[in-house]
Amino acid sequence: MKIAVYPGSFDPITLGHLDIIKRASAMFDRMVVLVSVNTAKSPLFSADERVKMIKEATSDLNNVEVKSYEGLLIDYCRENNIRIIIRGLRAITDFEYELQIAQTNKTFSNGEVDTVFLTTSLEYAYLSSSTVREFASFHGDISHCVTPHVAEMVYRKYGYEAKNNNGGNQNEQQN
Amino acid sequence: MKIAVYPGSFDPITLGHLDIIKRASAMFDRMVVLVSVNTAKSPLFSADERVKMIKEATSDLNNVEVKSYEGLLIDYCRENNIRIIIRGLRAITDFEYELQIAQTNKTFSNGEVDTVFLTTSLEYAYLSSSTVREFASFHGDISHCVTPHVAEMVYRKYGYEAKNNNGGNQNEQQN
Amino acid sequence: MKIAVYPGSFDPITLGHLDIIKRASAMFDRMVVLVSVNTAKSPLFSADERVKMIKEATSDLNNVEVKSYEGLLIDYCRENNIRIIIRGLRAITDFEYELQIAQTNKTFSNGEVDTVFLTTSLEYAYLSSSTVREFASFHGDISHCVTPHVAEMVYRKYGYEAKNNNGGNQNEQQN
Amino acid sequence: MKIAVYPGSFDPITLGHLDIIKRASAMFDRMVVLVSVNTAKSPLFSADERVKMIKEATSDLNNVEVKSYEGLLIDYCRENNIRIIIRGLRAITDFEYELQIAQTNKTFSNGEVDTVFLTTSLEYAYLSSSTVREFASFHGDISHCVTPHVAEMVYRKYGYEAKNNNGGNQNEQQN
Amino acid sequence: MKIAVYPGSFDPITLGHLDIIKRASAMFDRMVVLVSVNTAKSPLFSADERVKMIKEATSDLNNVEVKSYEGLLIDYCRENNIRIIIRGLRAITDFEYELQIAQTNKTFSNGEVDTVFLTTSLEYAYLSSSTVREFASFHGDISHCVTPHVAEMVYRKYGYEAKNNNGGNQNEQQN
Amino acid sequence: MKIAVYPGSFDPITLGHLDIIKRASAMFDRMVVLVSVNTAKSPLFSADERVKMIKEATSDLNNVEVKSYEGLLIDYCRENNIRIIIRGLRAITDFEYELQIAQTNKTFSNGEVDTVFLTTSLEYAYLSSSTVREFASFHGDISHCVTPHVAEMVYRKYGYEAKNNNGGNQNEQQN
Repeated sequence: MKIAVYPGSFDPITLGHLDIIKRASAMFDRMVVLVSVNTAKSPLFSADERVKMIKEATSDLNNVEVKSYEGLLIDYCRENNIRIIIRGLRAITDFEYELQIAQTNKTFSNGEVDTVFLTTSLEYAYLSSSTVREFASFHGDISHCVTPHVAEMVYRKYGYEAKNNNGGNQNEQQN
Repeated sequence: MKIAVYPGSFDPITLGHLDIIKRASAMFDRMVVLVSVNTAKSPLFSADERVKMIKEATSDLNNVEVKSYEGLLIDYCRENNIRIIIRGLRAITDFEYELQIAQTNKTFSNGEVDTVFLTTSLEYAYLSSSTVREFASFHGDISHCVTPHVAEMVYRKYGYEAKNNNGGNQNEQQN
Repeated sequence: MKIAVYPGSFDPITLGHLDIIKRASAMFDRMVVLVSVNTAKSPLFSADERVKMIKEATSDLNNVEVKSYEGLLIDYCRENNIRIIIRGLRAITDFEYELQIAQTNKTFSNGEVDTVFLTTSLEYAYLSSSTVREFASFHGDISHCVTPHVAEMVYRKYGYEAKNNNGGNQNEQQN
Repeated sequence: MKIAVYPGSFDPITLGHLDIIKRASAMFDRMVVLVSVNTAKSPLFSADERVKMIKEATSDLNNVEVKSYEGLLIDYCRENNIRIIIRGLRAITDFEYELQIAQTNKTFSNGEVDTVFLTTSLEYAYLSSSTVREFASFHGDISHCVTPHVAEMVYRKYGYEAKNNNGGNQNEQQN
Repeated sequence: MKIAVYPGSFDPITLGHLDIIKRASAMFDRMVVLVSVNTAKSPLFSADERVKMIKEATSDLNNVEVKSYEGLLIDYCRENNIRIIIRGLRAITDFEYELQIAQTNKTFSNGEVDTVFLTTSLEYAYLSSSTVREFASFHGDISHCVTPHVAEMVYRKYGYEAKNNNGGNQNEQQN
Repeated sequence: MKIAVYPGSFDPITLGHLDIIKRASAMFDRMVVLVSVNTAKSPLFSADERVKMIKEATSDLNNVEVKSYEGLLIDYCRENNIRIIIRGLRAITDFEYELQIAQTNKTFSNGEVDTVFLTTSLEYAYLSSSTVREFASFHGDISHCVTPHVAEMVYRKYGYEAKNNNGGNQNEQQN
């Protein structure tokens, strides 16, 4: 059985992430979406909130599990007998950074853990969690970046009510 | 009438920025240089100081206005009926980042706001506001990076008197 | 009056090119689409065929003209009093090459001719004239790359009848 | 069952290619190495020679088949019910080109065919078939680039006897 | 006599840095490894600790000196009559950043100080001081990244005993 | 004694090449400019013509020799006991290609031959031999790209008389 892990901070999970998850889950038998816990950063959502959000968004994918982990990714892989890491690529600068991480993980695991890359679909190529946070902080429309449920949770963090997802800016201008 | 906006932090404005402003102002009927106010960062100059500095440096360009704004750039564009954003490109990593921002602004504005890029002139390709701040903080010569008036304001922030702009380091060594 | 030139080989013109033309024509008062004649290459379409094709595809844009030229672009600009070149950017390697051309044209024209860049819209980012030619040569579906009229002309060059543009591959498999 | 195709010209197959094949064959249930026949190029080895060479080099991998094909890759995928393309990435310029091809194949196949990327192992990052051909044409040592069997076939094409693979240049200088 | 300076933060020095030092020291008559003191950052090791660590690691190279400096690199060069800066390149994003710094140093020194680049050897291409710190902070094996002496000093900073450098993770799993 | 080789096709030598030669000759004791003979390409100038042209242009540099060679660069280095290759870098795509060549040469020479990179000075960053040939073929002004002597030789190849190097385009427009 081929198991793959898709690590990330997912703060919050975007439609771009979900696109990678859907496409990768069709390629492997089982897939773990792994929320990386980095004590140095102060995320918008706690690890538990992020796990719940991703579970909700991937509930229709039977072979996808969601976990969180604090520590080295290759230690998680070894403990869970996983040999494949999945990463999405958006851009050149992404690529360089990702290439370095992939080589590091391959070398530090003595070749046991390998990384495969999928390219982000064109319609999500501009998307990032930080863009979502920035636009939401000014109550901008994020309905084409995240699921309605995630949008609601993000707006609430910034003290706003969720926008009407079917209307977006157009509605707002009419009111 | 074609109006374009040139946003940035301009902390301080460099000869590279001025080169872009001059060239772009010849391409469009009216141009707004927009100082972005980002409450998260602590700039060397206040937004007001930066607006004044840029006004002084662009006083010979009749179709250029200088403003500051706190919020999303596309909201500023919508409120002021501007559809063209101007950005300068120095390098590859610039390009990737700028490309993402441009696509974000185009998507979030439903295609109403477009971005055009000019390439930085070769003689200013190495220049950045942070380099100017770093060199000025050690009282290095910045006379080929900024206008004399800006140089004076930058040195003063770091507690130095302005250097003689016609002499630079050579003079200093002779004294 | 601000006049801009958009040079290229357009062999054939794609929806990506048309997207750039539409967006740029909204930014400048007048715009020339210039078919570059390069005697060294053997194009699929003659310069005349390409000019006709582009005229047909841009007939709804009042401020757009189509011309062909053999020689240095900066000589064409000088002869026609044009100071703005427009180029579309798809990718990093594009960018490096384009940056070099832009600096060359600026330097060789003593700064008289400047280049502005627009980024290709995401949905056309993968498109190139050579991809269109390659897929058409195997009678692949090119209906989402070029206008119906251009598709017909391209298929004819390769000895095929045009595909039904509303059906594409799906139809083909049913027959 | 997850089937993947690894297309290329393999003229000749290098240790870098074999590294990708080995790693990818461990990720998927079955794998086809596909020699692309491009009538426009004049390769060093015929398609048949290349298929034989790759079969010999992958004979220990039970789930790997070797085929050749003339036509569009997505047509091959459709005809053989394959939905995963594998590509190796060495560098930035590779990446841009590969990204474009991947998006083209995804778009032209209506999302049926997806591409995954593996990064070339560090020790083979410098390797390419054209480097092998260039060094072999001057009777340079290629024993750390290809298998002994492939080396012999390449040298023979250039009218040389194979070098002693255990000795390389050192031996040669002693004799 | 050709003297070159190799500046960096070296927090800690890696085998990749040592590879550059060894190769560059064979190219120039004398070489200064310069620990840059940046008061804004809080390093893992003090400047003095880093100088000692590098001296220990380069004790077999007769023409290499180790110093630390707080200030502009070009001021250090001028004061010590050095005209050559050495930098190692790992990647594209490195390159862009390094290119900007090199042009800055050349311009601000009126062309007196030039930079030469060596490319990091393939086996160290993935290595960085921050990776070493991250893996060490989780008591991961860093024996293939730094010298045994440096490894010991890094582990001690994080409150661990040094790992057995000959055994690494394998040993650990057996105990 | 440190000897370095600067290989290239130099068809023709540009001011950018001369800038690299001047700067590198100040860093090493002796320097060989090596015209690579590639039988596959048909150059504008013969190898002998290029050697003469470069000798003329570097006659004021005492430690610079000019040679031509047909074969592998690392074989030339071995035969002449040279361990340092010099290359100029203009851009990202240059860098990737150059990095691959450098690693190839290091690997195939068993680490005996190393490569150092200098970055092209800003004022020559746009320059290439092929741009010079293209502009000269249309009798464009190339006086800021090559020496007067080289300009004369290039124009003659294309059947033109040399332009007045002190006047350039301005003069031409007045006549």
